[in-house]
Amino acid sequence: MSAVPKQVHEAVTAMKASIQPFAASEKVYVQGSSPDIQVPFRKVSQSDTPASFGAEKNPPLYVYDTSGPYTDPAASIDLRLGLPALREKWIESRGDTERLSGPSSSYGHDRQHDPKLADMRFEHIRHPRRAKAGANVSQMHYAKKGIITPEMEFIAIRENQRLEAIHDMYKFQHPGESFGAATPKIITPEFVRDEVARGRAIIPNNINHPESEPMIIGRNFLVKINCNLGNSAVTSSIEEEVEKMLWSIRWGGDTVMDLSTGKNIHETREWIIRNSPVPIGTVPIYQALEKVNGKAEELTWEIFRDTLIEQAEQGVDYFTIHAGVRLAHIPLSAKRVTGIVSRGGSIMAKWCLAHHKESFLYTHFEETCEIMKAYDVAFSLGDGLRPGSIADANDEAQFAELRTLGELTKIAWKHDVQTMIEGPGHVPMHMIKANMDEQLKHCDEAPFYTLGPLTTDIAPGYDHITSAIGAAMIGWYGTAMLCYVTPKEHLGLPNKQDVRDGIIAYKIAAHAADLAKGHPGAQARDNALSKARFEFRWQDQFNLSLDPEKALEFHDETLPQEGAKQAHFCSMCGPHFCSMRITQDVRDYAKAHHIEAEEALKVGMEEMAEEFVKHGAQIYQKV
Amino acid sequence: MSAVPKQVHEAVTAMKASIQPFAASEKVYVQGSSPDIQVPFRKVSQSDTPASFGAEKNPPLYVYDTSGPYTDPAASIDLRLGLPALREKWIESRGDTERLSGPSSSYGHDRQHDPKLADMRFEHIRHPRRAKAGANVSQMHYAKKGIITPEMEFIAIRENQRLEAIHDMYKFQHPGESFGAATPKIITPEFVRDEVARGRAIIPNNINHPESEPMIIGRNFLVKINCNLGNSAVTSSIEEEVEKMLWSIRWGGDTVMDLSTGKNIHETREWIIRNSPVPIGTVPIYQALEKVNGKAEELTWEIFRDTLIEQAEQGVDYFTIHAGVRLAHIPLSAKRVTGIVSRGGSIMAKWCLAHHKESFLYTHFEETCEIMKAYDVAFSLGDGLRPGSIADANDEAQFAELRTLGELTKIAWKHDVQTMIEGPGHVPMHMIKANMDEQLKHCDEAPFYTLGPLTTDIAPGYDHITSAIGAAMIGWYGTAMLCYVTPKEHLGLPNKQDVRDGIIAYKIAAHAADLAKGHPGAQARDNALSKARFEFRWQDQFNLSLDPEKALEFHDETLPQEGAKQAHFCSMCGPHFCSMRITQDVRDYAKAHHIEAEEALKVGMEEMAEEFVKHGAQIYQKV
Repeated sequence: MSAVPKQVHEAVTAMKASIQPFAASEKVYVQGSSPDIQVPFRKVSQSDTPASFGAEKNPPLYVYDTSGPYTDPAASIDLRLGLPALREKWIESRGDTERLSGPSSSYGHDRQHDPKLADMRFEHIRHPRRAKAGANVSQMHYAKKGIITPEMEFIAIRENQRLEAIHDMYKFQHPGESFGAATPKIITPEFVRDEVARGRAIIPNNINHPESEPMIIGRNFLVKINCNLGNSAVTSSIEEEVEKMLWSIRWGGDTVMDLSTGKNIHETREWIIRNSPVPIGTVPIYQALEKVNGKAEELTWEIFRDTLIEQAEQGVDYFTIHAGVRLAHIPLSAKRVTGIVSRGGSIMAKWCLAHHKESFLYTHFEETCEIMKAYDVAFSLGDGLRPGSIADANDEAQFAELRTLGELTKIAWKHDVQTMIEGPGHVPMHMIKANMDEQLKHCDEAPFYTLGPLTTDIAPGYDHITSAIGAAMIGWYGTAMLCYVTPKEHLGLPNKQDVRDGIIAYKIAAHAADLAKGHPGAQARDNALSKARFEFRWQDQFNLSLDPEKALEFHDETLPQEGAKQAHFCSMCGPHFCSMRITQDVRDYAKAHHIEAEEALKVGMEEMAEEFVKHGAQIYQKV
Repeated sequence: MSAVPKQVHEAVTAMKASIQPFAASEKVYVQGSSPDIQVPFRKVSQSDTPASFGAEKNPPLYVYDTSGPYTDPAASIDLRLGLPALREKWIESRGDTERLSGPSSSYGHDRQHDPKLADMRFEHIRHPRRAKAGANVSQMHYAKKGIITPEMEFIAIRENQRLEAIHDMYKFQHPGESFGAATPKIITPEFVRDEVARGRAIIPNNINHPESEPMIIGRNFLVKINCNLGNSAVTSSIEEEVEKMLWSIRWGGDTVMDLSTGKNIHETREWIIRNSPVPIGTVPIYQALEKVNGKAEELTWEIFRDTLIEQAEQGVDYFTIHAGVRLAHIPLSAKRVTGIVSRGGSIMAKWCLAHHKESFLYTHFEETCEIMKAYDVAFSLGDGLRPGSIADANDEAQFAELRTLGELTKIAWKHDVQTMIEGPGHVPMHMIKANMDEQLKHCDEAPFYTLGPLTTDIAPGYDHITSAIGAAMIGWYGTAMLCYVTPKEHLGLPNKQDVRDGIIAYKIAAHAADLAKGHPGAQARDNALSKARFEFRWQDQFNLSLDPEKALEFHDETLPQEGAKQAHFCSMCGPHFCSMRITQDVRDYAKAHHIEAEEALKVGMEEMAEEFVKHGAQIYQKV
């Protein structure tokens, strides 16, 4: 066995404890219309309500689960083999793809045959798959033809979350009663198909990433979060990046972007994709720049094109492409406080100015579409001119680019290429909604995917919070996916703790947005947790939370005794002052006095109150 | 010297390092119209812009400073003596108060003469001051009479922040041009007076807390934050609570609430008030309950009244009083998921039910007003029926109480007693605005003071974040003060780190709200920090941030070398990929090619772009 695979395997074996299932959680699968559609959920069991609160059973909660087979004790995990290719049969059976004899990208071919890389290469690389000549294998293409793919059915089951809704799902094959904006109470496979056909949602799953569990990004579905990882010139190791991916999905990352700009980008990515149950995104221009030794002006369409094919054949599910940074937009950024802060945007700006030519990403956009549809890679149209400070928010540079992204969306859709749009950045609260409104208007409801936005610039070290505020708001307004920001933003590369902090902040923002949008079933978890809290079921409260381990740890800091987790109080107020205990006394009192109906009690109280008003009025007259 | 004072002094001396001024910061005072009006600011110096970015001077930034004399190297601090009584002369010179011979509360009198307490008693207790018979010493009373007090002038200077605005302040003695909602571009003493007279803002400063530096709470001023501290039956020590107060003001707490429910509440409070430069709030019912050994049903108006006087004579600046929890409201909470979660609310609910009588806080409200105006204690009308879960948000129990608080506000105002209104709690984003709207409507624009609100229930361990989202939004909508929530909320008593995390999250929320409201000068700090960031002035970026120590620590985790703080890149991208460096290259390129005017450049670009459109159109036709 070669060195790197062994290291990867050992590193991840060592962290095995930390990717164990959470307490009281069990991996369950809900079967779809055929036995090969097995949709994963995390089932969180609850204890019974104690006798003093009325002794009742509390049903388990089914939680959307991004952690893949890693949290399934029945799955056999070997990172050197990668995950099972669960979508392989579905892709194969559509009959519109062919298996190539090897990478058709020249760089991909060279890396695969370079003996110096043997030590770090993933051992079981599949030959890439590609659409047959003239075929279009995008989910949008199928959707527009009226085909409900197994991926769409998988997603419908996954989005419903509640078992009763999944049961009903098969009765209602058409979008149901409107709930909130446009989300039906029950999400059906047909609704999924319709949203994808309309361009309002995307299913990022490259035919070369059959290991992925289908998921959807669109504003009528649960708000998703993306986690970034990747090496840089300063730090680098394949096993670290694989570990970060596993760490991300454990805490709830819905997609992962590999933003590597350091060494062995190709090999690192292969390891990540083969072991990832969630879609992987990249920014291909980063690797292209690496190929020309960091000299932006030496980039060419040919190098970029080869990079797209290289990555598409490895299985990248979506590409960030900054095709909206046009030559004419660049001067609009000259007077900004923070200029161009997007790496992709600044690379292209430099290229455009050096050649005094229009961006090749823009001029070759249709050729790019041809590549995307041959593998079903989705566009994430990059916002290269996003504002990097409050001062630059919503300026003409930003909105000029957004309008261009709108044009490009229409071209992508003409090719049935799935497309989402990236958004800012740094935006004060009162200017956030305009971003969503402009995006909906110019990009015709293509999913919006924003980085925060950060609502102030003054808190480096806490930008997971400055941005979670903006993310929650823009999620409520309709953003479909939120790109996380860690506490290290602006200061350094995040470590594992930062990644966890960033993810939880974004799970909070996404869930707050789901609640505000009235997403069906979203509030079930809040209600279950609050009921557990009120009934002093401490362990259930921890288990139902976004970070059960942190909640337990914090509780035990003050009251570590096991008995305290049965106690009807906590360290905040002590036993005498607990308001929840007093509320229960109030209920008990009412019961003891045979006040059974709330209404009767209320009437009684009102009589008393009226009596008081007469009396009270006198008091006021005395003064 | 007795034991506790020594312990307090030693404990705080030991933490002296952590209450040192921040790097590059200097305490400065701006003098008002007389030499005894000295308004503190923290002056943050900046380094020059490096030559590669155009070599220029960067002016210092003046930051609102809550840390009192502790960060003034010229001040001599001795916690056993307390802070200097800076407002004493102003209070004295109004001639409407008298010095009593000792506490007029019987409990206060007993504590002061109990020899068993000598060990822990603050040594230099002043005799209390009270309004002369028939006098009203509230700032609202003066304001309504058209008097601009030194406190009001102090506040006007403090709120302007920018030196040029303070300079102009003395030219414009009337509310200036409207900026955003109703805030003038320049805040004048007359504007402060007018807002206080109108009831739209309060100045919490008890005549028995002359050590306090005047500050204002109102929606046309900077959004403030409150930090809670206090012992409980589980943990207790005077020195810890004094230390928490010092820690709170160091990080930016605008007021501090002492919510002690444990031992020696009276003595703990004396130590805190004598050493606090910020207003202190309490919930008197907590101590009253302690006096009846935790038996809510044994509470009486007489015990409560004596507690109000006891605390007013110590110098508490505002009282949370849950007078809106009326008998008739209680049944409205019976079917809630989390019942009554306010401690004060549940105590009063229990009392009302036990006696089947209207709350004595409600029936004796006018008598309470009489006490408040004799010391200038402000009301913080408590929301005893605030929702404790998403499920209970905006229900009839909550809004019925709010309407009662509106009634009580009018009664308080009749007595010229300053009043603010407390608000929730747990509220999903889409239901937040209704809280503000209802409050403005029923409470006639009295300042709103909210706890968060938390936008989801599912993240115990991270409720500083779930609630910072809601706090920022409701601050933008018009809430005047935000009560912080720490990561330990629902789980345990916060430690120092939790307090710091809670405060920074809330400083972020408050500042984000100031930006969104367009508060004059608020964006200056964002702009300065972003400019420093863009110009790679790392140290300035840290110094201008809300937590300079954390920012430095995070940066140094990856790049600890001193040289890295001069580097034109960071560990996130490494030197080749830095977008900010590339932007500068773009600017340099433009300069080298003699493209001097932005407009000229733009015109040139547009010509190029038009040319491309012709070419591009052909490309598109080919497909």
